[in-house]
Amino acid sequence: MPHINLPEGYPGIRSLFMYSPDTALPLNNLVQTLLHDPATSTLTPGERELIATYTSSLNDCTYCANTHGAIAKYQLNGDDHAVKDLLAKNVDSALVSEKMKALLHIAAKVQQGGKKVTEQDIARARDEGATDKEIHDTVLITAAFCMFNRYVDGLATWAPDDASVYDAIGKQRASEGYMTKPFLVK
Amino acid sequence: MPHINLPEGYPGIRSLFMYSPDTALPLNNLVQTLLHDPATSTLTPGERELIATYTSSLNDCTYCANTHGAIAKYQLNGDDHAVKDLLAKNVDSALVSEKMKALLHIAAKVQQGGKKVTEQDIARARDEGATDKEIHDTVLITAAFCMFNRYVDGLATWAPDDASVYDAIGKQRASEGYMTKPFLVK
Repeated sequence: MPHINLPEGYPGIRSLFMYSPDTALPLNNLVQTLLHDPATSTLTPGERELIATYTSSLNDCTYCANTHGAIAKYQLNGDDHAVKDLLAKNVDSALVSEKMKALLHIAAKVQQGGKKVTEQDIARARDEGATDKEIHDTVLITAAFCMFNRYVDGLATWAPDDASVYDAIGKQRASEGYMTKPFLVK
Repeated sequence: MPHINLPEGYPGIRSLFMYSPDTALPLNNLVQTLLHDPATSTLTPGERELIATYTSSLNDCTYCANTHGAIAKYQLNGDDHAVKDLLAKNVDSALVSEKMKALLHIAAKVQQGGKKVTEQDIARARDEGATDKEIHDTVLITAAFCMFNRYVDGLATWAPDDASVYDAIGKQRASEGYMTKPFLVK
């Protein structure tokens, strides 16, 4: 049961967006830019959703990990091999590029704390072809999901058990992005 | 030295806002709503800045702790007793209300992870007069600073040693809010 009185029938962060539309708007603008818009990053939407999925899995946030795992699958044309690897927190054997492995290694450090990232972590990502902007985007996506995961679990929102709920959200968000209902009801 | 090539001469998150204006806009809209706008919370801007200061201190983020500590001081009419207590991570003896102590106790749990918050933590805050919305705002402010702190330190931005820099930022942000230059240069 949620720690505060949230609108019933909406899972996870959807219930919080209904409860607090003032903060829902900038939060959705943030994920739209960070994860969905093709022009704002040279990482693909699928790669960015994988970073969100992995961070949420490291934070044991069931709702966010399943939701962004489902969105990643749809952004990757239905291929869920990498999603399954990252939900299981297996980066080294994941079906992703060496550049993505290096970026996910940085994500795992940021999840623990910003100061955990070393010059060696950055050098490895550069050696695998990551640009400054891709390193920036990885750090900010991970940091943002350290926020979203805490928001969702800190208020004990509802995480459905039914996999079809996450699949439906995944399909919707991969197609529409983050600025459509029921996220923004204002 | 920062991990990526950031504009010189701008400390902390200011250098990141210059580097990535696409994400600077929603991030500043978020703090404007969460911390500064009087109408969006029944916690005062000073109380909200104290939660940001405490979270940043728990995350050992020098730039954010000093910046929001300075903003809190100006929002509290120059009284920096509570700021000093929270920079030293001393909640129990801090010069704040019992309601604020209970909310800061929730903040300390959220900083560790969303699932650390217990029903007892929530009950204590309610017993001290906290509303659902104040509990919500505390969780989201703390979660947001778990993001900002990781963004600032994960890219190893510059944290000035000079206390007058933080004082100047504190005076500016307490007065102008978060939507003015040099944060938003687009």
